[in-house]
Amino acid sequence: MRRTVFDADHEAFRTSVRAFVERELRPRQEEFIQQRAIDRAAWKAAGQQGLLGLLIPEQYGGGEAGDYRFTAVLHEEFARLSVAFASSFTIHCEVVAPYLVELTTEEQRERWLPRFCAGELVTAIGMTEPSAGSDLAALRTTAVRDGEDWTLNGSKTFITNGFGADLVVVAARTSPEKGAKGITLFAVETDMPGFERGLKLDKVGQHEADTAELFFHDVRVPGANVIGEVDRGFIHMMERLPQERIGAAVLNLAHAAQILDETLEYVKERKAFGQSVGSFQYNKFRLAEMVTQIEVTQAFVDQCVAAHVQGRLSAVDAAKAKWWTAQVQNEVLDACVQLHGGYGYMNEYRVARAWQDARVTKIWAGSNEIMKELIGRDLGL
Amino acid sequence: MRRTVFDADHEAFRTSVRAFVERELRPRQEEFIQQRAIDRAAWKAAGQQGLLGLLIPEQYGGGEAGDYRFTAVLHEEFARLSVAFASSFTIHCEVVAPYLVELTTEEQRERWLPRFCAGELVTAIGMTEPSAGSDLAALRTTAVRDGEDWTLNGSKTFITNGFGADLVVVAARTSPEKGAKGITLFAVETDMPGFERGLKLDKVGQHEADTAELFFHDVRVPGANVIGEVDRGFIHMMERLPQERIGAAVLNLAHAAQILDETLEYVKERKAFGQSVGSFQYNKFRLAEMVTQIEVTQAFVDQCVAAHVQGRLSAVDAAKAKWWTAQVQNEVLDACVQLHGGYGYMNEYRVARAWQDARVTKIWAGSNEIMKELIGRDLGL
Amino acid sequence: MRRTVFDADHEAFRTSVRAFVERELRPRQEEFIQQRAIDRAAWKAAGQQGLLGLLIPEQYGGGEAGDYRFTAVLHEEFARLSVAFASSFTIHCEVVAPYLVELTTEEQRERWLPRFCAGELVTAIGMTEPSAGSDLAALRTTAVRDGEDWTLNGSKTFITNGFGADLVVVAARTSPEKGAKGITLFAVETDMPGFERGLKLDKVGQHEADTAELFFHDVRVPGANVIGEVDRGFIHMMERLPQERIGAAVLNLAHAAQILDETLEYVKERKAFGQSVGSFQYNKFRLAEMVTQIEVTQAFVDQCVAAHVQGRLSAVDAAKAKWWTAQVQNEVLDACVQLHGGYGYMNEYRVARAWQDARVTKIWAGSNEIMKELIGRDLGL
Amino acid sequence: MRRTVFDADHEAFRTSVRAFVERELRPRQEEFIQQRAIDRAAWKAAGQQGLLGLLIPEQYGGGEAGDYRFTAVLHEEFARLSVAFASSFTIHCEVVAPYLVELTTEEQRERWLPRFCAGELVTAIGMTEPSAGSDLAALRTTAVRDGEDWTLNGSKTFITNGFGADLVVVAARTSPEKGAKGITLFAVETDMPGFERGLKLDKVGQHEADTAELFFHDVRVPGANVIGEVDRGFIHMMERLPQERIGAAVLNLAHAAQILDETLEYVKERKAFGQSVGSFQYNKFRLAEMVTQIEVTQAFVDQCVAAHVQGRLSAVDAAKAKWWTAQVQNEVLDACVQLHGGYGYMNEYRVARAWQDARVTKIWAGSNEIMKELIGRDLGL
Repeated sequence: MRRTVFDADHEAFRTSVRAFVERELRPRQEEFIQQRAIDRAAWKAAGQQGLLGLLIPEQYGGGEAGDYRFTAVLHEEFARLSVAFASSFTIHCEVVAPYLVELTTEEQRERWLPRFCAGELVTAIGMTEPSAGSDLAALRTTAVRDGEDWTLNGSKTFITNGFGADLVVVAARTSPEKGAKGITLFAVETDMPGFERGLKLDKVGQHEADTAELFFHDVRVPGANVIGEVDRGFIHMMERLPQERIGAAVLNLAHAAQILDETLEYVKERKAFGQSVGSFQYNKFRLAEMVTQIEVTQAFVDQCVAAHVQGRLSAVDAAKAKWWTAQVQNEVLDACVQLHGGYGYMNEYRVARAWQDARVTKIWAGSNEIMKELIGRDLGL
Repeated sequence: MRRTVFDADHEAFRTSVRAFVERELRPRQEEFIQQRAIDRAAWKAAGQQGLLGLLIPEQYGGGEAGDYRFTAVLHEEFARLSVAFASSFTIHCEVVAPYLVELTTEEQRERWLPRFCAGELVTAIGMTEPSAGSDLAALRTTAVRDGEDWTLNGSKTFITNGFGADLVVVAARTSPEKGAKGITLFAVETDMPGFERGLKLDKVGQHEADTAELFFHDVRVPGANVIGEVDRGFIHMMERLPQERIGAAVLNLAHAAQILDETLEYVKERKAFGQSVGSFQYNKFRLAEMVTQIEVTQAFVDQCVAAHVQGRLSAVDAAKAKWWTAQVQNEVLDACVQLHGGYGYMNEYRVARAWQDARVTKIWAGSNEIMKELIGRDLGL
Repeated sequence: MRRTVFDADHEAFRTSVRAFVERELRPRQEEFIQQRAIDRAAWKAAGQQGLLGLLIPEQYGGGEAGDYRFTAVLHEEFARLSVAFASSFTIHCEVVAPYLVELTTEEQRERWLPRFCAGELVTAIGMTEPSAGSDLAALRTTAVRDGEDWTLNGSKTFITNGFGADLVVVAARTSPEKGAKGITLFAVETDMPGFERGLKLDKVGQHEADTAELFFHDVRVPGANVIGEVDRGFIHMMERLPQERIGAAVLNLAHAAQILDETLEYVKERKAFGQSVGSFQYNKFRLAEMVTQIEVTQAFVDQCVAAHVQGRLSAVDAAKAKWWTAQVQNEVLDACVQLHGGYGYMNEYRVARAWQDARVTKIWAGSNEIMKELIGRDLGL
Repeated sequence: MRRTVFDADHEAFRTSVRAFVERELRPRQEEFIQQRAIDRAAWKAAGQQGLLGLLIPEQYGGGEAGDYRFTAVLHEEFARLSVAFASSFTIHCEVVAPYLVELTTEEQRERWLPRFCAGELVTAIGMTEPSAGSDLAALRTTAVRDGEDWTLNGSKTFITNGFGADLVVVAARTSPEKGAKGITLFAVETDMPGFERGLKLDKVGQHEADTAELFFHDVRVPGANVIGEVDRGFIHMMERLPQERIGAAVLNLAHAAQILDETLEYVKERKAFGQSVGSFQYNKFRLAEMVTQIEVTQAFVDQCVAAHVQGRLSAVDAAKAKWWTAQVQNEVLDACVQLHGGYGYMNEYRVARAWQDARVTKIWAGSNEIMKELIGRDLGL
């Protein structure tokens, strides 16, 4: 089914991103996997290519693309290589960027955005805590005002880019008695005294991404590093959920679609019992089901992208896209592993890593269960 | 998720169709169910309302809508009442109409189309045979040339509108040695000698639709009743598959969406163990899943409709829509029955009939397995 | 996989039951379906054959089988004909019997049991109410003491055998302030003034069973018709749940297994596209899956039956068997319909009726959701 | 549901195995994972404990347990630690042992079995080849007779214990023109010239097991190392399939049951949104479903074990157990990961490794698709 959401400009941009991926990332993928991180050279290369600042105004060195579809293309092309690349880069360019553009002062923008675009200031976002999981309202990290500054204490976990980031947008409780209405966002620069990182987390997959636990021991954060309004952090975060979720959906689906394409090639070539693996009727039907599933889902994701471009994508519709794509991605990848037989269990086969990489998408950034809870509430249940 | 495929004209048409359904059909639904057929008065009412000839040129009394979306709206509104209404009416207005418009001579069009539009000539299509099922290439009904006429022998089964139709488009083998390339279409008028109908079939559901087995014993069909070219019937049928399948998909989904909406209302009101049935988390999540499933699928169906309007919907993409919607419809309706508890098993509840009505959509007009076979072949498997 | 739970005596009994079914029931099945009830002649024939009193002591005319496996065999053989027969008969012989044997006085047993065994006194059980569904604790039917008698008011619905029963065991609230601890069981004889029945309910399936709504308007029930202890009705019901549930599980599975066997025969004979339907790999794999699913489930059901014979089957283990078998039964029957193609949608095919009959097993006698709630609680969740 | 297949002797043995696992294996598990192999000390410890020779006659140092249930207990207890331990050990003690006991000469038994029981001679079995997968009939490894010896050429892959084994039972084609009837088994001792091993394979999971590719370049195998009869290797292998498959089923299920138990503990303790994770109704129902699924499956596996003890387990019934348990195991473990939230994606949590370990069970030793093919054939399809 031909997609209609993109026009020629987006496709031209896709071509250039794809070339970048093939030139700069694919040859070094195994290296990134081994070192459990994309290195700084790759971040800078992406910056030079203009890929990090699509959502950043030109005056700060960004691309000011002004059309979310370019970001969607970027997601898709990174995800085709690996969903871990996609998540590392998009945390920076898509998730963090709006906070730094929309909620910041002119001084802050000048201070951070040029280096943000250049890949010299890599960012992360610190919401999840060890004891709270997806429950933002229960977070325990606190920031206490001390003159112009704030003193930050607590910890965050499962932070993508956490090990290598230069700046982390951290949610902390500033008015404990006010619950969700007492949370503030801070830009913690990772050379601030009292900031510490744990080891890179030993994850099931997504090895190109450096994920870490972060600790704050009396970190003194200047007032000039508050992001947005004091005590409105929760609302700031809520307002950015549609983009974060549709971004996740775009990459989930592009990842699955790519591996399914590769699997289709594989089953046409691989022989068993004297015929191609894909020609067995059971496998043929499974593949037909999956192709349908991917195309059906793509139509919805594209509809969400189009709505987001028009500024009318709701958080709850984005939640539908997020959980559904994560489910589809995981089902499809599991079947793709099976179609590879024993080779599907070998890490040298892309499908094996893809399967491991994908498992977390049903969990992170609001688990599928959380998404269903939100949708259920929206239905008035 | 807001749908974008329809514009104000379509929605205005929807309003008028909905009014027709509420005025002319819903009050008589139970009567149609009991008599196992929509009666002629209802057909004529639909004709007078201009609903039967959307795809027929104005000169023959049709609406010449020229935009498939009006037909899609018609489907949806009929399906909201019952998928059986939808199938009865759409066999006539959507499936048969293109044969009579596109493949006919001027004489044939003048002879049939005005009454077709008025509901005075109700039509059916006869492809499926008792022994062949979905396998068109294996059909056994034959037509042998006899001067200007043809002599038709054989039988057809599962023919929607079969019991009440005045004209049936029948596929028959005219050049047995040429396989699929030896099939011709005939307009059999049901007062022709040798034409007989079996009893209305005792189906699981879809009771408003009169479905029957048809028998042809030396039926003499004049050459003037050949539809399209001799021996090109198979191709004529293949070319019309995209519209037939997307039509099925539209009604499958509208039906499921409507019953899900009604179920949502029900579970908000119905109490158990001191709370509304819909507020139990398990049920809430199931409903969130189903709403997502419906909206995701709607995006794809709408994309297919838009493609069909532009004349670029392939038969295989339409096959994806057909099987997927049938699957979704059946899954959703089964869960809706469950959410109604014991009442879901009582025919006086709409959900019970809907569940029975829907079961056939995974089977008819090419079963889900046939669709997967076609998609698999299209993938080169 | 060979079953090991039955020995030669059980199999000999099976042979005699099967002969009874073939002789007395199968030839009249269509008649029972049309009249929406098994008639009294059939009940009496079953009584003469000794099938109704397996759980009743010999002194009252019963078989005093003393081994639940004979009852399980009875279930299986009725279910092979139709799950509706099974439910009608087993409500009487398996569900009601223990109340009348274990909780009654000698006077009551002498009054009721001989006619119970002879099929002259057909019984039903009245728990479910229109507004309460599975929530026994919320029942609204009340019985108020009036001298030696009780005055009963309220209604019950979905009562199997409700239209034809002579005696209904009714749960009513006798101490409203004591919640579940204020419920008492009464034997309502259906000729008592103030007892009324609604019409036979128009169900989706199970047409051989007469299911009805029952109404009690100031029904005067003598104290001699109290079953068990006043205010202990809830406990009396709970104690009988293991047998009720394992009974349901036995018939669910036997029904599915039988129809699967018949479907296997069908797909071997039915041809499509030049080969038997069952030889297509996709169908073959689906059938292999279903045979596995049935045999796996049979092992568990048989294990439960063996445990029940030893008096150590818990209500929660029986709940596992009940919901799981209902799920398996419905999945298998849906696939069996599909394997029949269009014929699977015709009521003259056994699979079509079986599919409709089975739908209620996920709902009645405690829905699958209720079972999962109970199991979850038992897990300490 | 209480299991009934084991008696007190088996449970006493279970206690001793469990103590061994806790003492010798669990403390070193992380070490084995890091070195991608169980080391020889552990093999020898198992030998000293008498765990390796259960199926070996006493005269050769074995336990001569004479009852497969002891082996099943061993499987279960290893699988509770990790399915990788189970597979490494059981390839040796359960899969290879019957070949060396039943098909060997007295000289061979004396040569190999004492060291086999002591853990001094670790074994593997070489069936699968890079190009043939599960298709034994297509194997390309050849053995050509050369006087009393044979010259072996070819390769095998996915060989559990392949990197560390001292003796590998290798299937090779000896009469190429005779297809499956031309295969012979050879005991290749891994110090024979021309035998080479590839690197330990980089698998998705099962890291305690050393899995390798094996190469044979003109390996000269003495005639005294032929196992069983020349050209009857295929039959020798087929005859041992019931035990191999039921062994796999036992460990699949024990593994899943153990991790489900641990997950139940986790969800009772872990809090989110102010309550235990397991108390959310959706999670509670999922856990109830999984406990049911495990217990239902256990009943079937135990029934198969009992049948195997009596020598009447067929290969096809064992195939049902193998695929079904692999499916259940993978479904359960995926849900257990989900219930752990983000921690389920961290390798330090047992559930994360378990999920990765389990993925291969749907593929190895005959994929689920192969099993369904075999079952389908057995059904006459």
